[in-house]
Amino acid sequence: MSDQKLKIIPLGGLGEFGMNSMAIRYGDDIIVVDAGMMFPDDELLGVDIVTPDFSYLEQNAAHVRGLILTHGHEDHIGGVPFLLKQISVPVYGTAFTLALVERRLEEHQMTDDAKLNTVKPGDRLELGPFSIEFIHVTHSLVSCVALAITTPLGVIIHTGDYKVDPTPTDNLLFDLHTLAAYGKRGVLLLMSDSTNVDRPGYTESERAVGPRLEDLFVRSPRRLVISCFSSSIHRLQQILDFAHQYGRKVAFFGRSMTNTTEIAHDLGLLTIPDGVLLRPQDAMSLPPNKVVAVVSGTQGEPMSALSRVAVDNHKHLSIERGDTVALSARIIPGNEKGIYRMINHISRRGADVVYGTMNPPIHVSGHGSAEELRLVLNLVRPKYFVPVHGEYRQLARHAKLAQHLSHSGLKETFILESGNTLEIDDHGARKAEDVPVGRVCIDSGTLDEVVEEFVIRDRRHLSEDGFVLPIIAISKSTGRCEGLPEIVSRGFMSSEDSTGVLQEARQVVLKTLESSTAEERGDWGVMQEKIRTDLKRFLNKQTSRRPLIMPVILEV
Amino acid sequence: MSDQKLKIIPLGGLGEFGMNSMAIRYGDDIIVVDAGMMFPDDELLGVDIVTPDFSYLEQNAAHVRGLILTHGHEDHIGGVPFLLKQISVPVYGTAFTLALVERRLEEHQMTDDAKLNTVKPGDRLELGPFSIEFIHVTHSLVSCVALAITTPLGVIIHTGDYKVDPTPTDNLLFDLHTLAAYGKRGVLLLMSDSTNVDRPGYTESERAVGPRLEDLFVRSPRRLVISCFSSSIHRLQQILDFAHQYGRKVAFFGRSMTNTTEIAHDLGLLTIPDGVLLRPQDAMSLPPNKVVAVVSGTQGEPMSALSRVAVDNHKHLSIERGDTVALSARIIPGNEKGIYRMINHISRRGADVVYGTMNPPIHVSGHGSAEELRLVLNLVRPKYFVPVHGEYRQLARHAKLAQHLSHSGLKETFILESGNTLEIDDHGARKAEDVPVGRVCIDSGTLDEVVEEFVIRDRRHLSEDGFVLPIIAISKSTGRCEGLPEIVSRGFMSSEDSTGVLQEARQVVLKTLESSTAEERGDWGVMQEKIRTDLKRFLNKQTSRRPLIMPVILEV
Repeated sequence: MSDQKLKIIPLGGLGEFGMNSMAIRYGDDIIVVDAGMMFPDDELLGVDIVTPDFSYLEQNAAHVRGLILTHGHEDHIGGVPFLLKQISVPVYGTAFTLALVERRLEEHQMTDDAKLNTVKPGDRLELGPFSIEFIHVTHSLVSCVALAITTPLGVIIHTGDYKVDPTPTDNLLFDLHTLAAYGKRGVLLLMSDSTNVDRPGYTESERAVGPRLEDLFVRSPRRLVISCFSSSIHRLQQILDFAHQYGRKVAFFGRSMTNTTEIAHDLGLLTIPDGVLLRPQDAMSLPPNKVVAVVSGTQGEPMSALSRVAVDNHKHLSIERGDTVALSARIIPGNEKGIYRMINHISRRGADVVYGTMNPPIHVSGHGSAEELRLVLNLVRPKYFVPVHGEYRQLARHAKLAQHLSHSGLKETFILESGNTLEIDDHGARKAEDVPVGRVCIDSGTLDEVVEEFVIRDRRHLSEDGFVLPIIAISKSTGRCEGLPEIVSRGFMSSEDSTGVLQEARQVVLKTLESSTAEERGDWGVMQEKIRTDLKRFLNKQTSRRPLIMPVILEV
Repeated sequence: MSDQKLKIIPLGGLGEFGMNSMAIRYGDDIIVVDAGMMFPDDELLGVDIVTPDFSYLEQNAAHVRGLILTHGHEDHIGGVPFLLKQISVPVYGTAFTLALVERRLEEHQMTDDAKLNTVKPGDRLELGPFSIEFIHVTHSLVSCVALAITTPLGVIIHTGDYKVDPTPTDNLLFDLHTLAAYGKRGVLLLMSDSTNVDRPGYTESERAVGPRLEDLFVRSPRRLVISCFSSSIHRLQQILDFAHQYGRKVAFFGRSMTNTTEIAHDLGLLTIPDGVLLRPQDAMSLPPNKVVAVVSGTQGEPMSALSRVAVDNHKHLSIERGDTVALSARIIPGNEKGIYRMINHISRRGADVVYGTMNPPIHVSGHGSAEELRLVLNLVRPKYFVPVHGEYRQLARHAKLAQHLSHSGLKETFILESGNTLEIDDHGARKAEDVPVGRVCIDSGTLDEVVEEFVIRDRRHLSEDGFVLPIIAISKSTGRCEGLPEIVSRGFMSSEDSTGVLQEARQVVLKTLESSTAEERGDWGVMQEKIRTDLKRFLNKQTSRRPLIMPVILEV
C-alpha cells in the first residue's frame, strides 16, 4: 500500500519523432529516462537542433534524483548537455553511452561539472524510492539497456529502443529471461518502443547483413566505399572482419566515424584485426582493390565526408570509375532529396552505387517489428501499457497490438503525447493534468542561442513572399510626412516587375497618411497598423502575394 | 542516305525528376514529345509549379510541327498551357489525355486557341519528315502510348511511361507485338522510362491490388475511406466494382477526383455500376457500412479533401471511431512529413489507417522494374539507347542494364541530362552542343508570374537568418546624418535578445558614417556597401548569424 501517486510525464518523443525524454515521479522524487534531441523539420527555418523543453525539470530541480540513459543514439542523449545546463543531476548509463555523452559535453566545455556514473546490465541502482535494474537489449547500437524500475506501487518496464535479434553479431542476446521473470512476478506498467510497429513480422537480424556485405567484397573489382551510421558498431565490426578476410585495408573518414570507432575500440566493443587499419591519407596510394573506405554521411548531410567525396572535394579520397559505393543505412524520411542528389554525383563519377531497397538491402533496422513488440508485450504482460517513441499513428497502432492482452491482465492502454501525464495510485491509473512541454529550437554553433517560435514564424513568412517596408520620415517640427514615403522590399518580386507596383504603393501609403486625423498621426502605433492594413490589401490585390509588411516611422 | 542530322534535345526530365519534355529535330523540323511540370523542391521557396524553360522552342517556333503527348500525368502534360502561351502548335494525344489537357487550358482561358487532335493506338501521324505511330502501353493511367517515330535516318522508339502489366484490369495488353515488329525491322534509337530501374524483378500487376482492396471491403465494419490518385482510373474501377459487389455506395470527394472520373466516364473508360454513385452530401446519412468515400489528397497536400477530412474540416465527410482509411498510393519522397501528419490526425479520430508498406500494400507502381525494362530493351534491340525520365543515378543504372545488348546490335548508350543533345547522322551518333534549358518557377495562381532565381535566393537567405535594415536619414541641407540611425529587423533574433545588439549596431553604423570622407558620404552606393560590410562583421561576431543586411539611406 502506498499513499503517494506515481506519475508518468513524457517530456518528448511521444506523439513526435525523436527527442525522447520521460520523467517518472513518485511523491516528490523524480527520475528522468533519456534526454534526446531531434533534427528540425524544414519548417523550423535556420534551426539546427531541437530539444524538449525541460522547464518541468528545472522547476522541480531539487527533486530530480538522476538521469538514466538507455543507449547512445542522438534522440536519447543529444539533449543531455542542454538539460545539464539547466539542472545539475547525476547521469547513469553504460560505459559506451557515457563515452558518447562525454564527447558531447566536451564540445560544450562541460565535462568538469558532469557527474557520470557507469552501470552495466544486471546492475541495480537505488535513487530515492526507485530501484532500477538494467537489462541488456539488442539494437543497432552496442551497450543498450531496458530499465526495470521498482517503485512502491509496482514495477515499471521501460524498454528503451530495441529489436529482438535472435542472432546478434556480438552474440550478446536480448535478456529475455529477466524480462520474463519480471513479467511472471507482475509488472505495473510497460513502456515499449513503437518505432516499427507498422512493419509486419520480424525485423531481420543484424547478421543478415553479413552475406550482403560479403557479396560487395567479392564482387567489387576496385575500391569499395561503404557509408553507415558511425554508431553502428556491429556493422563496422562486420566490415572490418570481411576486409581482413578478403585482404583489404580499412580507412575511416568523417569525424564522427573516427570518434565512435575510437571509443568502441577503447572499450573493447570493436575488434580491429591486426594490420587492417589504414590512414585516410593512404587510401588512394594502395591498389584500389585492396582498400575499403568507411565514410560517414549516409543521409547526404551537405558537410559530411561522403557528400564531399561525392563532389570530389575531399582531401584524401576520390571516387573513380568502376568503384563501388554502398549506403549501408536506411533513408530517413525527409532526407531523400539530399541523399539522391549525393548519389547522382557519385553516379556521375562512374561508380556503381548500391542503396535503398535495391535487392538485397545492405541494411536492417534496429527496431523490432510488430511480432517482436508482441513478444515483449506477452513476456511482460503488464497491468498498464503506454506505447512510447513514435508519432500518434504509431502509438495508436501499438495500442491496438496490445488489445489481445486484455485476457492476460492488461487493464488499460494509455496513448500519451508529450506533456500528457499518467497518474497511478492504489485505486488505478488515469490521465492527469498536462505539464507544459514544447520544443526548444537551437541555432547553429552558438549553444546558448534559442530561437523563439515567433522568430521562426517570421522567417517562414519571409521565405514565402519576402518583405515590404514602407519608410515614412515625419518632421519633428511640423509633424508632417517629409516627401513621398520610401518603400524597400526584398524576396518579394523581381525588381523589374515590382517597380510599378511599389511606386503605386508609395502613393497608397501617402493617401493613408493624408486621410488620417491629426490625432491618429500622433499615435505611431495606430499609423503603423493603418498603413500595414491598407498596403496589405493593395499588394494582395495587385500581386496575389502577402509579403511581411513592416511600416517604419522615422522622426527627423 | 540522308544529308540532314537528327537531333535529340531533352528540355526536361533527364537528370531530374518530373517536367518531362523532349524535342526531336531532323534538319529544320522539330517535334516535341510531352511538356510536363514538376512540383518544386522545398528550396524553391514560395514557388508552386516548375516547368522546363521552353525558350529553345520559342526561338525555333516556326519549325515546331507538333506537340505529341504520351499520357495524361502532370509530369507529361502539366507544362502544356505554358508552352502554348509561348508558341502556337498543334497538340496530339489520346482522347483521355487531351480531355485532361483541356481542363488545364480552361483554367488558363486558353481553350479557344488550342489545336487539339485526337489520336488512338495504331494511328499514324505525318508531321514534316516524321511519321509517328502510336503504340498502346500499360501504365497507372488509361490511354497511354509509346511512340514509334520514323525519320529519314531510322526509327526512334519513345516509350513514354510504362510497365509491362501482364494482366491489366481493363484487359488492354501492352502492344508488345508492334514493338517487336519494329525491333525486328531495326530501330535506330530507343528512349525508355527509367523511373523504377533500381527495383529488381517485375512490378506487380494492377490486378494484384484487387484482393487487397477486396479485403478492406470485407473487413471494414464501418465507413471505408480510400484515397488514391484521381488519375488512377483502373484503381477507381476496381473500387467501384467491389462497392457494387459488397453493397456499398461510392461518393467522390475532391475537385480533381470529380473531374477525372467525369472525363473517364464520358469517354467510356470508367464503368459506373447502376445506383452505386452517392452524392457527397449524402455520405454521412447512409449507414456507415454502406458507404465508400473516395477522396483525393494521398500526398497530404494541405488543401486537399483528405487533409481537410483529417482535421474534421470538411463539409460533407467526417471520420469516426472505427472507420477504415486506406491510402492507395505511394508516398512520394519528400512528402512523408505532411502525409504522416495527416495520418496522425486521422489516427486521433480513432480510425484504422492502412498506408505505406504495411503488409500488403494497397498499391502497385505504374512503372516497370528492371526486368520489364530489360524486356523492352531486348524487344527493341536498338542501335543507340538514351535512358529517359530519371535522375542521373537512374539513367546511369538503366544504361548499365543495357550493356548485354552490345552483343545484339547496341552500338552505344548515351546518358543525356536536360540540355545535353545527341546528334545522329549517317556516320554515327555523338553528343553535340548543349542547348540552354532550365527551370521556370511559377508562383501561385497568377499564371504569368515567374519567380526569378535571385528572388528565391533572397527568400532563402531571409528564411535562415531574417533581415536587418539600418535606416539612415541624411539631411538634404547639411548632408549629415540626422540623429542616430534606426535599425529594423525581423526573423533575426527574439526582440529581447536583440535589443542590446541592435543598440550597439546603431553605433557601428554611426561610426562608419563618421569615419567616411565627405566624398564617400556623397556616394550612396559606396556608403551602403561600407555600412553593409561593417555591420555584417559586427553581427556575425556578436551573434554568429548572417542576416540579410540592406542599408536604406533617406534624404530628408
